[in-house]
Amino acid sequence: MQRILSAQLSAHVHEKVTIAGWVHRRRLLKSVAFLIVRDAEGLSQVVVTDGAAREQLERLTEESVVEVTALVTANAQAPGGVELVEPSVREMSAVRVPLPFDLHRPALTAGLPAQLDHAALALRHRTRARSLRIAAAATAGFRKALEEQRFVEIQTPKIVESATESGANVFRLDYFGRPGYLAQSPQFYKQLMVGVFERVFEVGPVFRAEPSDTGRHLAQYTSLDAEMGFVTDHRDVMAALTRTLAGMIAEVAQRTGFSESSVPEEIPAVHFTEALRIAGAPEDEPDLAPAHERAVGEWALREHGSEFVFVTGYPMRKRPFYTHPDPSRPGFSNGFDLLFRGMEIVTGGQRLHRYEDYLAALDGRVEAYQGYLDGFRYGMPPHGGWAIGLERFVARLTGAANVREVTAFPRDLHRIAP
Amino acid sequence: MQRILSAQLSAHVHEKVTIAGWVHRRRLLKSVAFLIVRDAEGLSQVVVTDGAAREQLERLTEESVVEVTALVTANAQAPGGVELVEPSVREMSAVRVPLPFDLHRPALTAGLPAQLDHAALALRHRTRARSLRIAAAATAGFRKALEEQRFVEIQTPKIVESATESGANVFRLDYFGRPGYLAQSPQFYKQLMVGVFERVFEVGPVFRAEPSDTGRHLAQYTSLDAEMGFVTDHRDVMAALTRTLAGMIAEVAQRTGFSESSVPEEIPAVHFTEALRIAGAPEDEPDLAPAHERAVGEWALREHGSEFVFVTGYPMRKRPFYTHPDPSRPGFSNGFDLLFRGMEIVTGGQRLHRYEDYLAALDGRVEAYQGYLDGFRYGMPPHGGWAIGLERFVARLTGAANVREVTAFPRDLHRIAP
Repeated sequence: MQRILSAQLSAHVHEKVTIAGWVHRRRLLKSVAFLIVRDAEGLSQVVVTDGAAREQLERLTEESVVEVTALVTANAQAPGGVELVEPSVREMSAVRVPLPFDLHRPALTAGLPAQLDHAALALRHRTRARSLRIAAAATAGFRKALEEQRFVEIQTPKIVESATESGANVFRLDYFGRPGYLAQSPQFYKQLMVGVFERVFEVGPVFRAEPSDTGRHLAQYTSLDAEMGFVTDHRDVMAALTRTLAGMIAEVAQRTGFSESSVPEEIPAVHFTEALRIAGAPEDEPDLAPAHERAVGEWALREHGSEFVFVTGYPMRKRPFYTHPDPSRPGFSNGFDLLFRGMEIVTGGQRLHRYEDYLAALDGRVEAYQGYLDGFRYGMPPHGGWAIGLERFVARLTGAANVREVTAFPRDLHRIAP
Repeated sequence: MQRILSAQLSAHVHEKVTIAGWVHRRRLLKSVAFLIVRDAEGLSQVVVTDGAAREQLERLTEESVVEVTALVTANAQAPGGVELVEPSVREMSAVRVPLPFDLHRPALTAGLPAQLDHAALALRHRTRARSLRIAAAATAGFRKALEEQRFVEIQTPKIVESATESGANVFRLDYFGRPGYLAQSPQFYKQLMVGVFERVFEVGPVFRAEPSDTGRHLAQYTSLDAEMGFVTDHRDVMAALTRTLAGMIAEVAQRTGFSESSVPEEIPAVHFTEALRIAGAPEDEPDLAPAHERAVGEWALREHGSEFVFVTGYPMRKRPFYTHPDPSRPGFSNGFDLLFRGMEIVTGGQRLHRYEDYLAALDGRVEAYQGYLDGFRYGMPPHGGWAIGLERFVARLTGAANVREVTAFPRDLHRIAP
């Protein structure tokens, strides 16, 4: 008999059906017993009254996989208004070890390290699975919004001959006997592809040998990258990003029903120097510390009713060499960050587009970059782009304190498995 | 003035407009000169008659980036039926070196190595850019077809603690002072995620330290992975794959107009032993060589009018340890390959789903896999999946002889840049 899903049961009242899934919970009362089966779409309640069936149920273990053939009956008390009676249960895959934690409680009681040690199990919990569904929806919304804006998807190398962002925090590997590095970003490649398609995006892993063990750093994360040509300056990039973020949040709401944030038509923007003032930081600070970002986030919510705020014009000395300077304000850049609920989730800006400017910016350190720089010899328009950290975005959106809570199998200083 | 695209010109006849793009070609005739500007959507013809403008045009170089403000006029002889007259041209980014090859000819005259050395330039050529657009469309079609079939997108680690597919051909790296490996596939992770969402897919890079220097191998390629639970056997997987391939080819046709192949309602399937017979190979061959694949591909086209053919039941000894055996035929598996025009572009099959079966299959080599195997202790349904090599798929579809021709910045034995 063709298996149906829990969510389809109510369309089959009075019919005999087959469902399949995991033993989510058993409730063994005196006169009756219940088997709750979980599948991808939700839960089904199976009522067991028969003696032999009850004996079988008593031997079943949570998370074992079962197939249940039974009659669907209406019961206003049951979840979804239906339950299954007169079941015959077939065990497809038995769990023979104790579970390290329960999955049927509203929240996972295990601490984060135990959850990560047993990720394949923990991710089955409603809260963890929901975050990953939100991540999938956000990613789909990212692509959809960009394709509507004429961006073309690209795939670029993750093994490179030199560090993209900085010589620190880069993973080294043996590439057929030569040194290679894991790409810290698709930065150069997406820039070069502006020469081909004008507007490009990439969704892919980036790698940071990040020695800091914080709730917002991962050694591998998913970067939602975009780059666009023929911009006037970074403001065109910010406008495209605003539209893209709105698309992401709309897609999350549409696919998952999770809708606790909204992107204003125009996201408020403050210059870096103003951000320092708002945060009460000394005016010679070269960057915003996490506490400063929180203060600016609170300011944007208070003054503009926005959970998002752009900080523009970061000092050149704190931005990577490919950053375009602000022509009107020496020492400052056309680079920006986007803060969401007081945390940086996007870095972006206008880039240098002339070969000569790269030569000057690299100040002689050209050799390691020659393969990439060549592209700038052959005509590149003014361009800019951004990178959204997917896990940070989802953590902010769902209120998770640690990016590891919204990452399937996180990689960090201490963790390379599972 | 707001820039418009070449494709929009015909809607602006008699108007003054601004276009921008690359100097694709100049034609300096005696009485008149033409500037052909290329943008993301196509070409625009600019007519130059004025003496000063002509002098400027003579100094311009191919691939420099220009902005042109001019009057749109109808001309049935011009490409798209319109041309631009009375132009004023602003150079945004000048090319000051000779180009290693021309871009305006119908085919790139440079050999593949020169194209790859100057990839940022070569990819601008119509034929190369088209292949990447086809790859983007195929990827979008893959996702769309799978989401219609309830698959959820996932992102999984690319740094792992042990080789996924085999100990050979794996890149080693230094992971915070410990050994780590680049993932050869998302195999274990997508299997574990079947426990969460039942059906999952991932589009991402995979890494093979492939020592063979052929037209079908890359050190990094894009793998279109899917995995699905609650299957009866590999045939359910093949049905979902068939539907997905049809969606990919439809999306390519819809987005790019490229439509030279079609997926039959049911793709013909031959058992491995039958495939050997068709190929005229000895019956004790453990695998299909490229020549055998070509013969089976020709057979499928001749006998079934299909460019696609499944080969099922590969011998267990040539398949990875997670492969599910064929219960009715000892020594053979529920694993399959899909050949497209005589080349393997997909590998898939049913997997083991019981912890005990993994212990037996690994024959004691459990330790390296313990992090992954734990998931199978906690209840996994019968499942299977596949991996499509995106570059191979696009190469077959477009008739490219070498996967490097359809890869933006390929990585191989000899190449780590650009």
